Amino acid sequence: MLPLNIHHTAIAVHDLDSALADLEAQYGVRPSHREVIQEQGVEEAMVAMGGSHIQILMPLDVDTPVGRFLASRGEGLHHVAFQVADIDAALAHLEASGARLVDREPRIGGGGHRIAFVHPAALASTLIELVEVE
Amino acid sequence: MLPLNIHHTAIAVHDLDSALADLEAQYGVRPSHREVIQEQGVEEAMVAMGGSHIQILMPLDVDTPVGRFLASRGEGLHHVAFQVADIDAALAHLEASGARLVDREPRIGGGGHRIAFVHPAALASTLIELVEVE
Repeated sequence: MLPLNIHHTAIAVHDLDSALADLEAQYGVRPSHREVIQEQGVEEAMVAMGGSHIQILMPLDVDTPVGRFLASRGEGLHHVAFQVADIDAALAHLEASGARLVDREPRIGGGGHRIAFVHPAALASTLIELVEVE
Repeated sequence: MLPLNIHHTAIAVHDLDSALADLEAQYGVRPSHREVIQEQGVEEAMVAMGGSHIQILMPLDVDTPVGRFLASRGEGLHHVAFQVADIDAALAHLEASGARLVDREPRIGGGGHRIAFVHPAALASTLIELVEVE
């Protein structure tokens, strides 16, 4: 089960517009996609960078996973997402390896992709997202 | 000044061998490069993933930047590195944009690349590394 790529690395912020303005001023990059995902309680922007992306995540409310992350950890790196060709096979392999999963079944995430999260307990306290891109 | 790619996303760990074993068991990937960098006080491994990498960082001592990070934050995502074609031009552009730099001049990092760190104060408390790859 070989990950194809780092699909994105996500940064949690209090102010999405401010973070995007800083990214553009410092690195000359702009978001290719911006979306509110009510189910996850976030507004997110994807900034393409080569074959990968930086994702900027802003919580819609303090009582959301990203809102609680900001309250306890502050702004900063939130998770890294691996692009996989077959997310069902990837989840089955992870479960067989003993990795603790957040999502045992894929759900629909940003950009309409099938996604699933792997629990930080599985790998060095690092939240990992799988993103299926065909 | 357009970043070409996400060169790597780095995870700080207490035990490099254990983290690499978890990555291989869960995702079937192995390090392509492993190196002790005395100047930075780390042993690091690079795991290629598509056009990017996951970097696993282990401090050589508690009294190093990564050792202090682990003591205060625990294991987890440490920094993200943008690949640039001309690091001198990138640093000049960042300084002109008002971004606070850790390194005003490039130094030699892992793999013999010219690297420089941008201070977390510049963008959402996120430590960013520039890596020059020609």
